[in-house]
Formats: sequence, C-alpha cells, structure tokens
Amino acid sequence: MEITKEIALRYSDTDQMGVIYHANYVTFFEQGRTAYFKAIGIDYNSIEKEGIIFPVHDIHITYHNATRLDERIYVSTKIKQTNPVKIIFEHTIKNHQNEIKAKGKSVIVCVDKNTFKIQKIPNVLPHLIERMKKNGV
Amino acid sequence: MEITKEIALRYSDTDQMGVIYHANYVTFFEQGRTAYFKAIGIDYNSIEKEGIIFPVHDIHITYHNATRLDERIYVSTKIKQTNPVKIIFEHTIKNHQNEIKAKGKSVIVCVDKNTFKIQKIPNVLPHLIERMKKNGV
Amino acid sequence: MEITKEIALRYSDTDQMGVIYHANYVTFFEQGRTAYFKAIGIDYNSIEKEGIIFPVHDIHITYHNATRLDERIYVSTKIKQTNPVKIIFEHTIKNHQNEIKAKGKSVIVCVDKNTFKIQKIPNVLPHLIERMKKNGV
Amino acid sequence: MEITKEIALRYSDTDQMGVIYHANYVTFFEQGRTAYFKAIGIDYNSIEKEGIIFPVHDIHITYHNATRLDERIYVSTKIKQTNPVKIIFEHTIKNHQNEIKAKGKSVIVCVDKNTFKIQKIPNVLPHLIERMKKNGV
Repeated sequence: MEITKEIALRYSDTDQMGVIYHANYVTFFEQGRTAYFKAIGIDYNSIEKEGIIFPVHDIHITYHNATRLDERIYVSTKIKQTNPVKIIFEHTIKNHQNEIKAKGKSVIVCVDKNTFKIQKIPNVLPHLIERMKKNGV
Repeated sequence: MEITKEIALRYSDTDQMGVIYHANYVTFFEQGRTAYFKAIGIDYNSIEKEGIIFPVHDIHITYHNATRLDERIYVSTKIKQTNPVKIIFEHTIKNHQNEIKAKGKSVIVCVDKNTFKIQKIPNVLPHLIERMKKNGV
Repeated sequence: MEITKEIALRYSDTDQMGVIYHANYVTFFEQGRTAYFKAIGIDYNSIEKEGIIFPVHDIHITYHNATRLDERIYVSTKIKQTNPVKIIFEHTIKNHQNEIKAKGKSVIVCVDKNTFKIQKIPNVLPHLIERMKKNGV
Repeated sequence: MEITKEIALRYSDTDQMGVIYHANYVTFFEQGRTAYFKAIGIDYNSIEKEGIIFPVHDIHITYHNATRLDERIYVSTKIKQTNPVKIIFEHTIKNHQNEIKAKGKSVIVCVDKNTFKIQKIPNVLPHLIERMKKNGV
C-alpha cells in the first residue's frame, strides 16, 4: 500500500537559491508518515496523548531535482519493514508532472514519552499495519 | 538597561527574495528576550520546568531594511513596562554598520503550563527586574 | 471581500509548550495574502518573476488562544487599505469551532527586486483589487 | 582536519515532544559545512555571488539521543571524500558532556546557479581542501 499526499508549500520553505530548502523535505517525509497513519485509521496526535511517541531514528534523502515554489509536489509513502520497536518507511517526492524530486527513507522508533526509552509498539499499531498488508501492501 | 545579542543567522533563514525571511525576526525577538532574562540572572528554561510559561501575547514589527545572509546582525532588547501578569519588551535589530533592520515590541504574559490561564508572574521575576531598573534601566 | 484558507499545520510548527510556535502565525498571514491574490486572479509567483516583489513592511499580531496541532485552523484575509505603493491586509485566524486564535494586520510594499527600492505597484494589481472592491469588499 | 562549531539553539527549534525537532539537525549539518569552509578560508556566501552554488545531493542522519533546549551542542565536520563535482562531509553532533546526539553525512554537488546543471568545482576549492589535507586531515 502506498499513500500519496500533496504538500502545501510555503514561501518560508524557499531559500536564497530560489528553491525549496533541502531540510524541509524531512518535514515532507513527516507529513507523509502522518498521512499514512491516518489512511490506516491512526491519529498520530492521539497516540502521543497516551504517552507514546515515535521519534525519528534515521533519515536518508537523495535529492534528484530542485523544487520551485510554484510547483505542486506530492509525497508517496509506504512501509518497507516493521518490527516490535520500529517502522521503516520509504518515501518518494514527485511534482505534478511526475518528475522525481527526492527519494528516501525514515525510521521511527517507539519510545516512552517521559524517559525516551525504547519500548514495544503498542498492540494497536502492528495490528492495523498487518491488516493493511493483507489488503495488499 | 538594554541587552544586545548577536543573532547566528542560518542559511535556512533566507527566502527566494535573497534576504532573511521576515517571520524569522520574530524568533530574533525571542532570542533577545532570552538574552535579557539571562542578563538579569534568569534561565528561561528553568522557569518552564517549574510549570510557568510566558507565551507571546502581542508582536509588532516594522521592517526598515532587508538583511542579507552575509551581514552580522544584533538584537537590542529592553523592558518598556511590566505589570503583575505581563512584560512589554522593545527590540531593535541592527547590523554591524549600525543600519536599522527592524524595530518592534513583544508582549509576553504569564500563564499556567497546563491550563494556559493567565496567572501572576512569580515573585522572583519582577523582583529581579525591579532590581535591574534601580541600577538604571 | 474576505478570503478564507485552511492552514496545513505541520508537526514542525509545534514548540515545547505543546502548541503552534507563535512566529509561524506570520507565515499563516503570508498564506492568507497569497490566497487572497489567487482569489482575485493574481499568481504571486508570476509577479516575482517579472522583477516585482512585495516584502512585508509591518506586522502586528495579537494572540488570543494557543493552537494545538490537532486543531483545524483557517486564516481569513481582507484588504483594509491600498495606496500606490502599499497594501494593508487584515487577518483573523480561527479554528473549526470558530474560536479566535489570533488577529492582526500585515503591510506589504512594492519594491524593485534588485534594488529593494520602493516603486509604484504595477497597474494590474490596483486595477484588480478595485474591481473586487466594486463587487463588494 | 575536523572543525567543531557550537550551534545556537532557538526556542523555535523545539517541538511538542519537548526536544529539538529532528529536521533541524539538517540545518546544523549545514552550519557545520559553512564553518568548515570558513576554516579553510572560503566564504560560502561569496562563492554563491559568483554564480556557483552547492545544493545538497544526499543527507543521512542517525539520531542517537534527543536534545533538550538547555543543552549546549556542537557539530564536528570533516571531509570524507571529494571529486571534481562533489564533496562528501561527515558530521557528528555532541553535547557539552560529550554525549553523541547524531551522526551522519552530507553530500554537496557543484551546480550552475541558473541552470542547476552539475559543473566542476571551481579550481580554488579543491586546491584549498587539498592544502588542508596535506596539513593533516
């Protein structure tokens, strides 16, 4: 399963090269993960309120083409792998003409909100992800 | 008393006009307030840990000249007025050649961290500020 | 005429108070202005390509209520006044339950892209704005 | 040769987890590269003015420990490899107690400012880097 979400670009995302500043793609990956969670029925904000947070453990981005503010871009996100404590996502960012802007992956790990110690992902999450996989990830 | 602090500009602060994006000046004011607090012996972070936060209630900025990334800029901050629940700061941002970049003010109010309800500023703060005033604000 | 646009909040917009960081409202005003221009048939990006830019000259924001990431918020923008070199906008930010989050205004001035010197707004803009006003601003 | 630079953390760098938002580390890497260039006598801003820009082609970050706003952190940067069109940097971010916060690398490529086409790095850069290497990278 792959979930595609349009990114609402902001003027503040640009830099003096005249393109979208590269660090912002990391937030586009984040928006992709949130959209993925939403698509499988999980409200990421609600999870945090229950004391479970998913900090990013690893980010890898390869930039293919610069993005201009007047382009419409989309992040497509799928899950490559999960285990009891982490989820590995793959992301592709393209524009409205299907030009690839960036590809990468992000790894999130489940930690306790107060101690930041790694803990098992609560039952509800892998359950839902498995269900989606059966429907044809 | 006026406290002056240099701002460490970042490439990400620029926008496609080739200058520092205007919203970032709001964070420069914030850095000015933190420097002011520090100068009077208050660690803003420690205050927050005790459940007291100072959200911004009002911001006013007039932009005089655009700032380029290769300029060195400084925010000068003083307190214009305080009352039992809020503090009004005045800020001026200049470059190394004394060119004025922006002027403005920010108003912060004391609220409870959990309820966001306005509460009296804890004793320690006006006390310190008064002491500084006596030393010649 | 008042143009209302939903803001796509990002996790990166939050701060350690657990709410949307106050400087980001300045970018929400910007998104409001862009939406306003678009509604009257002006693509702000195209204007910039012709060498005309509209830096912000003045920002005033009063914050009424903190915004949480799980809220849906909207910026409503109207033009309060124009003259040959500047446009004054009024903005209101509300959530989906009509709770006011912030009110303010922004003033943009027309400058030459290379010199940053103030110049008259090109004919096309006041023309369009006037046309909208006749339709009942 | 390894260049170490302190990062001036901002309140706006935090997120609602109460830590420095992960995408900001990408800007810390950028600050590390700029410090490195400066240490070998290159003003990155001046290069851009001559029509040469170095967009980021690849970023990889592994996050080891979350960073709180009241910590002092440092980015240490060295060059792992260069070729006629790109430079590969390695970065380590630590706090004042030598705790590792993140490790990673960034790859920048030399492109023409207007076309964004890859071009050879101008003579001056590899020359300087080579000189530093001889002095004991």
